[in-house]
Amino acid sequence: MTQRPAVLVVQPHLAPLSGFLETLYDVYRLWEGPPLEAEPDIRALIVAGEHPLDKGLVERLPNLSLVACFTSGHEGIDVDWCRARGLAVSHAPGVNHEDVADHALGLILASRRSIFEGDRAVRGGDWRRDARTITPSMKDAKLGIVGLGSIGRAVAQRAAAFRMDIRWWGPREKQADWPRMGSLVELARWADLLVVACKADESNRGLIDREVMTALGPEGLLVNVARGVLVDEDALIELLKSGTLGAAALDVFEEEPTPADRWAGVPNVVLTPHTGGATQAAVPAMLGLLLQNLAAHFAGRPLVTPVA
Amino acid sequence: MTQRPAVLVVQPHLAPLSGFLETLYDVYRLWEGPPLEAEPDIRALIVAGEHPLDKGLVERLPNLSLVACFTSGHEGIDVDWCRARGLAVSHAPGVNHEDVADHALGLILASRRSIFEGDRAVRGGDWRRDARTITPSMKDAKLGIVGLGSIGRAVAQRAAAFRMDIRWWGPREKQADWPRMGSLVELARWADLLVVACKADESNRGLIDREVMTALGPEGLLVNVARGVLVDEDALIELLKSGTLGAAALDVFEEEPTPADRWAGVPNVVLTPHTGGATQAAVPAMLGLLLQNLAAHFAGRPLVTPVA
Repeated sequence: MTQRPAVLVVQPHLAPLSGFLETLYDVYRLWEGPPLEAEPDIRALIVAGEHPLDKGLVERLPNLSLVACFTSGHEGIDVDWCRARGLAVSHAPGVNHEDVADHALGLILASRRSIFEGDRAVRGGDWRRDARTITPSMKDAKLGIVGLGSIGRAVAQRAAAFRMDIRWWGPREKQADWPRMGSLVELARWADLLVVACKADESNRGLIDREVMTALGPEGLLVNVARGVLVDEDALIELLKSGTLGAAALDVFEEEPTPADRWAGVPNVVLTPHTGGATQAAVPAMLGLLLQNLAAHFAGRPLVTPVA
Repeated sequence: MTQRPAVLVVQPHLAPLSGFLETLYDVYRLWEGPPLEAEPDIRALIVAGEHPLDKGLVERLPNLSLVACFTSGHEGIDVDWCRARGLAVSHAPGVNHEDVADHALGLILASRRSIFEGDRAVRGGDWRRDARTITPSMKDAKLGIVGLGSIGRAVAQRAAAFRMDIRWWGPREKQADWPRMGSLVELARWADLLVVACKADESNRGLIDREVMTALGPEGLLVNVARGVLVDEDALIELLKSGTLGAAALDVFEEEPTPADRWAGVPNVVLTPHTGGATQAAVPAMLGLLLQNLAAHFAGRPLVTPVA
């Protein structure tokens, strides 16, 4: 073993973390094919929690003791399986949910107030003197929030400032200022705007299915700032093309990066590359938690933010 | 004279009002060249208040007694001159300022959180697996509001939900929850985001000049949801091209429609075709006030919403 603990960064988009990690650790990158002889050295994996953890990889690392999620979400990690192997799991909760909520409002406004279409019209010379685009008012817009966790509550707080009418649904009753609907389909039928803000796990894959999107309907807008797997994306595309669903604004996708050609010719969509929680304030805070968890773990202290 | 009062609609983009007006009035349209013999019949002008009132036209209409602005703004109307001729002036205040504020937030988020660039990246296949766009957090963003009238206050209320740091400037001290800066340049120097929300009149043409935009600086975003004449647009374009000003998001322009080629190659701009206040809720409310003012005027009752 080297003197400094060795860590293995798993997903390429986490590469920018390397510089920080290298001041304290020996850093290997999975996509560079770390040398086989390093495998006994590696004591922590650095992962994005939405990606499925490669159990075969874990089993090849005899001295691994920590799976450290850079993210808040950790749905790709089989926590019970890790625990059974004596692996600790950390993540970065409570850091970027307000940024994600900000982004959700940006997506709602961009789509609902036709900011994109407006921009295209101005640039294309299609702004006509004898007509004016009239868009829906946000006041009294019926906003349905799927999942009233930290992101969902932050979305609701912002939406209240826009005078929207707010309801929510989640599998469990919670203390809230906004009424809970009896079912997801009921929420979608009522809503003009449906924001997916819940955690993803194996129990709710494809939660936003054909029935939910059809209930949301031809005037409805679906916003997803949570996880791509929560939405049946093939059905979404089909329903947008047929006009059965009015519009969608998506920051997350079944596959990331989502293939560009998948969205060619799909009407009324606003697409952002999973940037909702990636802000100049949140990313350093997530990095800070990652470094704190690594330091605590290697010093034999309790993790700062273990996965519960 | 005909039995029904005759009204003259002045700007072509008000043409959609004709159907409503025709149920009660004889309606002429200036751009269709109303017949000379109708001039004595015309008792009211229907105008968009931001357009300069054609005094020569007014002088050709001997029985004109009302200038009815469909809009809230009336900076194109020389109200003193109208009063001196015995002309009443009405407008539609208090109806769409919250919609305009909603739009301002939409523009801020679209620009600041790179929603447009993100959409282009996804569609263009430029979303890379090994990089993630990191955008500024709205939290603690320094928002400077120019003019703390009804729009400015509504912008501040929304911005507070996004945890922005809010200050303002206007020529007069006002009761407010947010601190007033000593000058506009001082506000611009402090701000990350500068939202123009004041009324336009002859006193503040070009208020947002080269000095103000330079003070806002290369990381700053200028948002204009008020009136195009408030901003020195030639200077704006030059400062964006040189990077002296970071970004702009504009719903209003010196000339409307603004020529598309004026914006070709201008970096970091989001442009919407003056849709801020034109919502499905606001437009009928503005129409309602217009009809109420016309009815009151022709019945000899006080105007519902006279220009003060």
